[in-house]
Amino acid sequence: MLKKLLLAGICVLSAGTGLFAEDGDLYSWEFSVDMMWLFIGAILVFVMQAGFALVETGLTRAKNASNITMKNLMDFCLGAIAYWAIGWGFMYGSDSLGGLIGASDFFKGPMEITASAGNFYKSWFFQVVFAATAATIVSGAMAGRTQFKSYLVYSTFISAFIYPIQGHWIWGGGWLSKLGFHDFAGSTVVHSVGGWSALMGAMIVGPRLGKYVKSPDGAVLVKAFPGHNIPFACLGVLLLWFGWFGFNAASTGTAVGEGGSILARVAVTTCLAASAGALGSLSLSWAWFKKPDVSMTMNGILAGLVSITAPCAVVSPGASIVIGFIGGILVVLAVEFIDKVLRIDDPVGASSVHLVCGIFGTLAVGIWGNVEGVALGLLHGGGFTQLGRQLAGVLSVGAWSAFTSLGLFLAIKAVIGLRVSAKDEMMGLDLSEHKSEAYTGFQIFSNM
Amino acid sequence: MLKKLLLAGICVLSAGTGLFAEDGDLYSWEFSVDMMWLFIGAILVFVMQAGFALVETGLTRAKNASNITMKNLMDFCLGAIAYWAIGWGFMYGSDSLGGLIGASDFFKGPMEITASAGNFYKSWFFQVVFAATAATIVSGAMAGRTQFKSYLVYSTFISAFIYPIQGHWIWGGGWLSKLGFHDFAGSTVVHSVGGWSALMGAMIVGPRLGKYVKSPDGAVLVKAFPGHNIPFACLGVLLLWFGWFGFNAASTGTAVGEGGSILARVAVTTCLAASAGALGSLSLSWAWFKKPDVSMTMNGILAGLVSITAPCAVVSPGASIVIGFIGGILVVLAVEFIDKVLRIDDPVGASSVHLVCGIFGTLAVGIWGNVEGVALGLLHGGGFTQLGRQLAGVLSVGAWSAFTSLGLFLAIKAVIGLRVSAKDEMMGLDLSEHKSEAYTGFQIFSNM
Amino acid sequence: MLKKLLLAGICVLSAGTGLFAEDGDLYSWEFSVDMMWLFIGAILVFVMQAGFALVETGLTRAKNASNITMKNLMDFCLGAIAYWAIGWGFMYGSDSLGGLIGASDFFKGPMEITASAGNFYKSWFFQVVFAATAATIVSGAMAGRTQFKSYLVYSTFISAFIYPIQGHWIWGGGWLSKLGFHDFAGSTVVHSVGGWSALMGAMIVGPRLGKYVKSPDGAVLVKAFPGHNIPFACLGVLLLWFGWFGFNAASTGTAVGEGGSILARVAVTTCLAASAGALGSLSLSWAWFKKPDVSMTMNGILAGLVSITAPCAVVSPGASIVIGFIGGILVVLAVEFIDKVLRIDDPVGASSVHLVCGIFGTLAVGIWGNVEGVALGLLHGGGFTQLGRQLAGVLSVGAWSAFTSLGLFLAIKAVIGLRVSAKDEMMGLDLSEHKSEAYTGFQIFSNM
Repeated sequence: MLKKLLLAGICVLSAGTGLFAEDGDLYSWEFSVDMMWLFIGAILVFVMQAGFALVETGLTRAKNASNITMKNLMDFCLGAIAYWAIGWGFMYGSDSLGGLIGASDFFKGPMEITASAGNFYKSWFFQVVFAATAATIVSGAMAGRTQFKSYLVYSTFISAFIYPIQGHWIWGGGWLSKLGFHDFAGSTVVHSVGGWSALMGAMIVGPRLGKYVKSPDGAVLVKAFPGHNIPFACLGVLLLWFGWFGFNAASTGTAVGEGGSILARVAVTTCLAASAGALGSLSLSWAWFKKPDVSMTMNGILAGLVSITAPCAVVSPGASIVIGFIGGILVVLAVEFIDKVLRIDDPVGASSVHLVCGIFGTLAVGIWGNVEGVALGLLHGGGFTQLGRQLAGVLSVGAWSAFTSLGLFLAIKAVIGLRVSAKDEMMGLDLSEHKSEAYTGFQIFSNM
Repeated sequence: MLKKLLLAGICVLSAGTGLFAEDGDLYSWEFSVDMMWLFIGAILVFVMQAGFALVETGLTRAKNASNITMKNLMDFCLGAIAYWAIGWGFMYGSDSLGGLIGASDFFKGPMEITASAGNFYKSWFFQVVFAATAATIVSGAMAGRTQFKSYLVYSTFISAFIYPIQGHWIWGGGWLSKLGFHDFAGSTVVHSVGGWSALMGAMIVGPRLGKYVKSPDGAVLVKAFPGHNIPFACLGVLLLWFGWFGFNAASTGTAVGEGGSILARVAVTTCLAASAGALGSLSLSWAWFKKPDVSMTMNGILAGLVSITAPCAVVSPGASIVIGFIGGILVVLAVEFIDKVLRIDDPVGASSVHLVCGIFGTLAVGIWGNVEGVALGLLHGGGFTQLGRQLAGVLSVGAWSAFTSLGLFLAIKAVIGLRVSAKDEMMGLDLSEHKSEAYTGFQIFSNM
Repeated sequence: MLKKLLLAGICVLSAGTGLFAEDGDLYSWEFSVDMMWLFIGAILVFVMQAGFALVETGLTRAKNASNITMKNLMDFCLGAIAYWAIGWGFMYGSDSLGGLIGASDFFKGPMEITASAGNFYKSWFFQVVFAATAATIVSGAMAGRTQFKSYLVYSTFISAFIYPIQGHWIWGGGWLSKLGFHDFAGSTVVHSVGGWSALMGAMIVGPRLGKYVKSPDGAVLVKAFPGHNIPFACLGVLLLWFGWFGFNAASTGTAVGEGGSILARVAVTTCLAASAGALGSLSLSWAWFKKPDVSMTMNGILAGLVSITAPCAVVSPGASIVIGFIGGILVVLAVEFIDKVLRIDDPVGASSVHLVCGIFGTLAVGIWGNVEGVALGLLHGGGFTQLGRQLAGVLSVGAWSAFTSLGLFLAIKAVIGLRVSAKDEMMGLDLSEHKSEAYTGFQIFSNM
């Protein structure tokens, strides 16, 4: 069954080469149903852009609010054009170099009105919003001190190169898909890639001023910069969750036949994992910090969602609660570890949510994955257990995205600069980068 | 026709026992279409969670904004898990005790990929968001003085017990459904249940400090605490309305055949009733208070929506305007009555919107309901007119939910406490309960 | 093909006269699929109401925030009722006066449950949200100084008369549709009509106090009033974009057969044009004003969306990028021209976005439109090139909507007054018109 599922996925995702390629006018109810289904999925993933913008804005400071919204808008706008021109071809073009890269279909745009053309547009639209999700994860991690123009360069590159090439390995028919790696909706393909870039970006750009301060006795004080608008963050989390139902459920690629049965289960596991993620983060933060922590709980929902993204189609509701709950625990530990131990300043916890839980979710396929009574962890094929295959994907995609994004940020830093001046940072990026405040008329207490 | 409709509803809602139960692989276009249709409906109802969070946040004070968002998130998260574990079984499990309760299918989660399993997941996903709607209504009514942990206990119980048991009576094949009670999308099942709990909760927890003040001459002054963010409330109302199209239209349970015709009419009556509700509240508030009142108008839209929820499928567009308009009038009267006469402090008017209009909407089925030319008010069956049947539902569900929620809140009060200390209330629940402000960096004028 | 497309559009839009009119029970998968498809489209267009409310609120001042949300809510509520009672009949009623007006189906609301009735409700629901879009465009242009009650009169009239009558010409089978004018989703029908009314309204009501100030040496200083909440505006833009996918893609009227292929291309061209619009505005504003301007970039996205609305189904992805980019350039030029040269005070740039880009997008059909290899600009029929037909539509609809809205605003001004007093304007419309602030508890720096 897993095989069938993967095949169906690959078939659907390899646009223009599917059922309708031979005969441009072979229209059927399956065609119309799936056209709607992926349209619905795509616009739900699109609305996650609003979710990211709100979470990142809400959890950072008022003086940078316009800047972060601009970055969230522009990474989509530049990314979409780059993904149309180049990215799609690298991801879904004809397999080249032994499964390493796609190499055709750049600037694709058939004008005839055929089922084949329709299928291409359907698939592109569904894919571009996933590419944009990977790109937009980074803005939060680098909030408050990154130059606007440098961010534009970054977001073009991730959508044109970094994301599509590893995407080809897994969803484009490349070498990891041939190995049997399973990532239903993108814990690795989307979230860990965005998460690695977020971590590398935050590391290279360095912490915000005043974040880690040496006290006279040599100890390092870690300052928290609380977000300026919790209701924004809450709305953002709910819009992300809303969109995630499309992200995961529409990754069936079809609502026809078994696709219909699977999408319903995916909706349920997605719902329960997110809920359990909140419960995990709430419980741990309450026990540890002696308060039911607001931003941790919100990140717990996202942690549950990222964790269930890979295994959503192959686990039971009960397992999804376990996976979500562990994701919620992990995100609290990761936020503390990255902040206090690694001392990498990730203002919204993007790397904890998307990288750490992205890895966990991918491995969860090999631990809890179970199709028609057969535990995936025990499945063997080509000498690997499923857990082994998942680990291979985590490591190879991790190496690719960590090194390429590291190189990208170092190159940007060397050529055009990555960080604003200390004076500009203190003033806030809204005034220094865009000459406009986000909240004209409101008295902001201080720029902290 | 009404019978057919009810039968169709019951058939669809009794997951796993429908058309596909015998043959797990009987896939068809009807299967795929309805899978999508209920998925769409469910995520629309899900997004109402964001609507509730924003309305409740916007219409209450800045010092409690984090707390109310947390309550809105956690009532869904706990409720979803409770509804999966227990609630579903009570509501849609096999009918027991002569129609009083369902008793099977607890912790249900089939792993095989069959149409039957798909239908179960579809129905569960569509139902859990209704359960969560009932639960989340209460947070607004108890805003600003209720302990966070007590609220968590409440929301688990309503989703596990209070909501599902009466839900069984009406939508699960229980005694009220056999009587011929008609509640298409839940004026009673969802809104009045949430509304009764809201009223009981607000009564037991008592008014916010300074809400009702004795003047030296013995008269009681009723203070208004204006909301702190009207655009949030406006966005919340529009998201609720957006989601309500799914709430009502997808309650057809199917987009196939007559289901398709009915869903389109439901969309229209829902649209017009909400519009007329705004008009009703605006008119009355303008005439009475000499101003076009903002929060009353917003509540008028919600009043129209709650009022049309039961009769949406069986009334004409003209009747939906009448029903919505009356709902809009009623909500203004109810807000004033509950606040000034009953002196129950419901900060956002939740009980006026959901309870009063929930009752009105349920009765409206018996007054304006009309299917294929036959007025429902005149229909006789089993010795009752339809209005009599509707009244039976209102009274029985009212008694059940009022008494169980009263008992629940009294028990919570006795065992773990329901209300925060006066000092904590003055400080605001964000700081006292969560040790974090919602709007760090903004100068808040006072904590009022 | 264009003909076929137009025919299909007209067929679908002429509710109740389509495939199912003869036989009320002719249900099929096509019926169910299209029922869902237009439902999805309609609710997406509905959510644009939230987008408009947020953009207009965010880009104007805090002291008028409640008022602008109320206007946005009420123009929909009044407009929906007016469009049901009268507007629909003028737009889609039987063609009268030689294609000038529809004249039947007022107050329509069939009670029987037939496919024919279902199709009517489907079409009405899809159409009412377009009517409401035209109406709501105006509130932003007249923000900050327009009486609430006058605005209510305006919005009833545009939904009942101005919008539907020209709508009949193009989408209702009237004279422009017979001429071969092509406006797929409403660059002219919806956006230019709203844009003309916005421009006329802003002109008649006059600029906000202090907007254009004579300096002692006789020069006129143009003051900018920055918006008070940029994240609101950002969320609004993303919700508009989200909804626009339904606005454009569901304007196929069907997801069946070629409709499915076309809707997928429309989604892609809509996505790319919006992205390119942001790029156009960002580039020009950055070069011109030496900063990557926030509100210009947001308006650039909307400019791209309005520009692609007419040609979305007949242009390639590459052309959609060109069209969107030019739209983004145009909106910056138009904002400056209307503000600095015409000195018409349009606080949110509504006329630049919806009128200027609405005209551009309509003409773009004749320039870049290309179906199955035939450039539309070269198509001849009835002595006109397609560009000539497009120009005829722009001019005739422009004349109609400019004159009728000019007359309407002048009449309102004469009879009940259009503008609030100077004192009320300084105090802000929230307090003067509604006696309530939008942000109680926050210290607002000044009322500017």
